[in-house]
Amino acid sequence: MKKEYISQATLKRLPQYLRIIKDKINENVKNISSTEIATILRLNPIQVRKDLALVSRVDGKPGVGFNGEELIQDLEEVLNLNNITDAVIVGAGKLGQALLNYKGFENNLNILMAFDNDKIKCDNKKIFFIDDMENLINKNNIQIGIITVPKENAQDVCDIMVNSGIKAIWNFAPINLKVPENIAVKNEDLSTSLVILLKKLKEKGTEIK
Amino acid sequence: MKKEYISQATLKRLPQYLRIIKDKINENVKNISSTEIATILRLNPIQVRKDLALVSRVDGKPGVGFNGEELIQDLEEVLNLNNITDAVIVGAGKLGQALLNYKGFENNLNILMAFDNDKIKCDNKKIFFIDDMENLINKNNIQIGIITVPKENAQDVCDIMVNSGIKAIWNFAPINLKVPENIAVKNEDLSTSLVILLKKLKEKGTEIK
Repeated sequence: MKKEYISQATLKRLPQYLRIIKDKINENVKNISSTEIATILRLNPIQVRKDLALVSRVDGKPGVGFNGEELIQDLEEVLNLNNITDAVIVGAGKLGQALLNYKGFENNLNILMAFDNDKIKCDNKKIFFIDDMENLINKNNIQIGIITVPKENAQDVCDIMVNSGIKAIWNFAPINLKVPENIAVKNEDLSTSLVILLKKLKEKGTEIK
Repeated sequence: MKKEYISQATLKRLPQYLRIIKDKINENVKNISSTEIATILRLNPIQVRKDLALVSRVDGKPGVGFNGEELIQDLEEVLNLNNITDAVIVGAGKLGQALLNYKGFENNLNILMAFDNDKIKCDNKKIFFIDDMENLINKNNIQIGIITVPKENAQDVCDIMVNSGIKAIWNFAPINLKVPENIAVKNEDLSTSLVILLKKLKEKGTEIK
């Protein structure tokens, strides 16, 4: 793995490359070229070639492409996907439970438990009452907190997380959290995604009703 | 509203500005400066100033900032948020139901109905059986389709959507859909977000377990 700086834009494309290469391997395809990846993702082949040059130890061979298994190893190393990090979810509503059951995180994220302020939802196996949150996060030395509570409660939950030792917050509530400088935050703002989709729809020349 | 080209990077920031300005208006604050917005979002003030110059009809006044109400109007016009677009969801699992009940889309998206292949989930009011999908999308002239089915079924659902007249697809399944050139697709890939969060966590100097 090379140690060059990787931009956030490149970083967002890498997991998509990884997914495609894994699909190909599952179809017993051994080699894959940057052009093939670019075609599937509708990206510029030059862009894909540059990205892969950043992460791959060996160059792709002209007419053959990259060895898929090697490229997977390189991508996983760059993306830091060789570890499983523990996490908790706060807010066991529909979104929280959807994430709790989501199949795509398995190799990277272990959602140990969820918390909710509704005692009826708490089974004390996977879902616990909110008052136990600080104690259980602390005890299990958990570093990632996922917030799926309503907007109004998100900052309070965030503050408790930070006090409990959480280092990175994945925020699904539509609010800008105030956190200390050393805490990482990734906002998952579905409204923003929607705006981009609507804009794309308009660009395709479709009249939006 | 100015008609200059707006990059996707800027486009992603605009809804965040809009949210902050609306929050300020709710707190009875009339004017807001690009510096205040930049501070809240931890962005470069020059970046925010440039973005707002692209969308705002009038310049912000030094020491006073922008008139919040005017800026909201300009942002909503640029973001095309003055229309409500009809949509359907396919896959009424936890994620599908979370989106069906999500409060953040109200002014832009009207999710008319959902479809599922599990008859027990169908109430024939809001959730219908999958076999009725093509007919109901067509009859209601719906343009946006949201896919929240498992990966294995996503392409089939996508094909039916396209055949039914859907013009834009918001895809939550971790798969690259094959669609005709004139169809807009926005992939919501939670694994990619997770990778970015883990990378941020690492950059903060925190040792990931």
